[in-house]
Amino acid sequence: MLDRRNFIRGMALAGAAADAKADDAKADQRKSGSAAAEAAAGKDVTRKLASFVLASKPEDVPHLVNKEAARTLLNWAACAVGGSRHETVDIAVSALAPFAGPAQATLLGRKERMDILNAALINGIASHIFDYDDTHLRTVIHPAGPVASAILALSEYRPVSGRDFMHALVLGVEAECRIGNAVYPAHYDAGWHITGTCGVFGSAASVGKLLGLNQQQMVWALGLAATQPVGLKEMFGTMTKSFHPGRAAQNGLTAALLAARNFTSSNQPLEAKAGWMNVLSTSRDYTELTKMLGQTYEISLNTYKPFACGVVIHPAIDGCIQLRNQYKLTADQIERIDLRVHPLVLELTGKKTPQTGLEGKFSVYYAAAVAIVKGAAGEREFSDTLVRDPQIVALRDRATATVDPTVGEAQVKIAITLKDGRRLEKSIDKVIGSLENPLTDAAIEAKFLDLSSGILPAAQARKTIDLCWNAEKLANAGDIARAAAA
Amino acid sequence: MLDRRNFIRGMALAGAAADAKADDAKADQRKSGSAAAEAAAGKDVTRKLASFVLASKPEDVPHLVNKEAARTLLNWAACAVGGSRHETVDIAVSALAPFAGPAQATLLGRKERMDILNAALINGIASHIFDYDDTHLRTVIHPAGPVASAILALSEYRPVSGRDFMHALVLGVEAECRIGNAVYPAHYDAGWHITGTCGVFGSAASVGKLLGLNQQQMVWALGLAATQPVGLKEMFGTMTKSFHPGRAAQNGLTAALLAARNFTSSNQPLEAKAGWMNVLSTSRDYTELTKMLGQTYEISLNTYKPFACGVVIHPAIDGCIQLRNQYKLTADQIERIDLRVHPLVLELTGKKTPQTGLEGKFSVYYAAAVAIVKGAAGEREFSDTLVRDPQIVALRDRATATVDPTVGEAQVKIAITLKDGRRLEKSIDKVIGSLENPLTDAAIEAKFLDLSSGILPAAQARKTIDLCWNAEKLANAGDIARAAAA
Repeated sequence: MLDRRNFIRGMALAGAAADAKADDAKADQRKSGSAAAEAAAGKDVTRKLASFVLASKPEDVPHLVNKEAARTLLNWAACAVGGSRHETVDIAVSALAPFAGPAQATLLGRKERMDILNAALINGIASHIFDYDDTHLRTVIHPAGPVASAILALSEYRPVSGRDFMHALVLGVEAECRIGNAVYPAHYDAGWHITGTCGVFGSAASVGKLLGLNQQQMVWALGLAATQPVGLKEMFGTMTKSFHPGRAAQNGLTAALLAARNFTSSNQPLEAKAGWMNVLSTSRDYTELTKMLGQTYEISLNTYKPFACGVVIHPAIDGCIQLRNQYKLTADQIERIDLRVHPLVLELTGKKTPQTGLEGKFSVYYAAAVAIVKGAAGEREFSDTLVRDPQIVALRDRATATVDPTVGEAQVKIAITLKDGRRLEKSIDKVIGSLENPLTDAAIEAKFLDLSSGILPAAQARKTIDLCWNAEKLANAGDIARAAAA
Repeated sequence: MLDRRNFIRGMALAGAAADAKADDAKADQRKSGSAAAEAAAGKDVTRKLASFVLASKPEDVPHLVNKEAARTLLNWAACAVGGSRHETVDIAVSALAPFAGPAQATLLGRKERMDILNAALINGIASHIFDYDDTHLRTVIHPAGPVASAILALSEYRPVSGRDFMHALVLGVEAECRIGNAVYPAHYDAGWHITGTCGVFGSAASVGKLLGLNQQQMVWALGLAATQPVGLKEMFGTMTKSFHPGRAAQNGLTAALLAARNFTSSNQPLEAKAGWMNVLSTSRDYTELTKMLGQTYEISLNTYKPFACGVVIHPAIDGCIQLRNQYKLTADQIERIDLRVHPLVLELTGKKTPQTGLEGKFSVYYAAAVAIVKGAAGEREFSDTLVRDPQIVALRDRATATVDPTVGEAQVKIAITLKDGRRLEKSIDKVIGSLENPLTDAAIEAKFLDLSSGILPAAQARKTIDLCWNAEKLANAGDIARAAAA
């Protein structure tokens, strides 16, 4: 883990140097003060990005980047299997099955197989259901859904070596997150669900790489992606939110398949005056697309949620679990729990008496209580049953939360008073799951086992985990999907 | 035809009255000067539109509106059959066939059958290839492609009476064009290809009507449509332009199929702060969505191109064909052709020596010459062969065009000097194909026969034409598609 942190620090420093350069460039641009300067910065960026993706070789990618890609893949598979039996997926499968093509690809965690375009859609939907998937914090893109859903489906139809698969995953994430970097936050603030709108590029780029597109075709694939953005933030809170990464995967896959046959599109889909960057964002920084391309990798900045709820209450859960484990706490020992929290915590998750699993995700009191009783806060800890469990409800009602302006977003201060009079304290400074304190490999494995429990038999879950860790060595990456079928 | 013109004039007057009211309302709004007023105007517009579509009965639609719907359908079918053998369609079919579902629906003009989602896509692509499809002039939406492609495919899978089919066509066009009216021109100017971005609503609404969605489901269908806009204008000049109406048809069909199973979405997809109207347009007039809803019909304002090229040179072609027919002109009689034209004509179509059929569409000289030699300017008159035909090339080189500021966009002044010294003149005031001088039914039939020649046998073309004219009386509208299969 230390290696990884040093590596990230190295990347951050390199990034900072590049930022300084870019700032200089921006200052220059301000001096010349013209849209022409911006247009100059944008010149040929689509082609440059396409060229990079095509020229990149697996051996160019540092070992630690590949390691992060494996963590991304495993976390994505965990979420896709975990979400696979949700009503949202049931509906999508039953609505689309009558029109689906040959049984080419696995729906993770399910028995049905579908054509690769529908499989990409369904697996992408499933992977986002619990909002438990990976997060590129700088852009709030969930990068794996659009990319992994597309290339894994493709791998079952047209065998792809694990090495090429992982390389395509890295490159797809690179494309979507760099495009995201270039337009965030203006694009997101305008109302777009950035995972869907940028994700389609990630899907197209990764699939295009695996299909062996030439440069012109890759540019067209990105053009066909640009013309099919998916996702308004207005859909948050509805099933359509999960539809976004799935449809992005499917649209990008379609784009690459068409481009592979020379279906023509714009040659400047990103940077043209009427291109994606201008139409879908009020501001843009083209240098984000090319600076240090091939030297830094956005997937290295990916993070994984330890708990199946909004990040704002992760510090409280983290601290409660640590105290529980350190003192082997049980609910009946506890007189009261007092939390000092960041203002957003009460604003977003201040529900005192949640009645459903979903409501439980918006109650810092419930989250703290279930964390102490169960030592976890996965999807299963936010079930309707547990939210009404008398022991947890009683503990929940003994919890208080007070806003403390000195407490940061990734922090919390916890004091637990025991019935025997002891007072246990814990401060969380850098919450688990953040870039500085990433989820361990073991924790991601545990997340997979937790999410797949009741869906995949234990042996099969183990096998899928092993295949993800060893993905780079597989003769055929499609084996991962087949291992995760119900 | 006179009835129709009076009807349109009546509608225009009613519309003008409503416009005056709306202008008052807008003035009021400016006075109150607040976004709140706009938000108030937008309140529940998605639900209002959904309710209208669901409450409308076939017998509510005036006879002349239905008549226009039949013209729209026939013109669309002509374009879809005509475009069906184009390379763009060949590529899309070959790229997607390996993943397509059961052979549920016809690809017009072709032998293959595909699942309804792919058939909607392919027929929508084909119908836009020659840019010869219908135009709602106020928004430049090509309304039929997204709607007819979706509901015709559906009709082959789930039988739909001709009456319900035509009603759904009218309602789908109503939805997409009203949404277009509300955001045009800001939305179009921002870079969106309005046929794709608004078309997806037309498809969702018309399919949703046929599937018998309830109000909540229809709102969700429009929400799923809103989150899948298709089309940047940047793609113009490439195959991706034709992809837009096809993908819009497919996306809207998908949206309605999902909503029918209660796949949830936003309840205010159009009007919410982060909804489609705000995210995809810099300005909007919500009153366009509801004013005189059910009293006027946008499909009545639909127009059909008589010639397979940009409208800017239609007056020249129209006049040349009229002179040719009036004087039975042949090329060898003609000394010279002098055109006085609107400035845009030379700006957009000033090519002196076109070498390909496509270039011929951008040459007012060639267009005038071929119109005189062939008496037509359909897709066949813009073939590579004819563009290089020595007789036509020679006549083309005897044509001049001069900008005349007194000549309007729909006008031209033509003088043809004959070798015998006679000088023939013709002024076109209201070009054929405009709302004031619409294509006759016979001309739309001729367009179908021309476009389908070499694709469908004459008897089959005749049958398809008759089915379109009599669509309202069909037991199953799917018969139209089956009649147009190769």
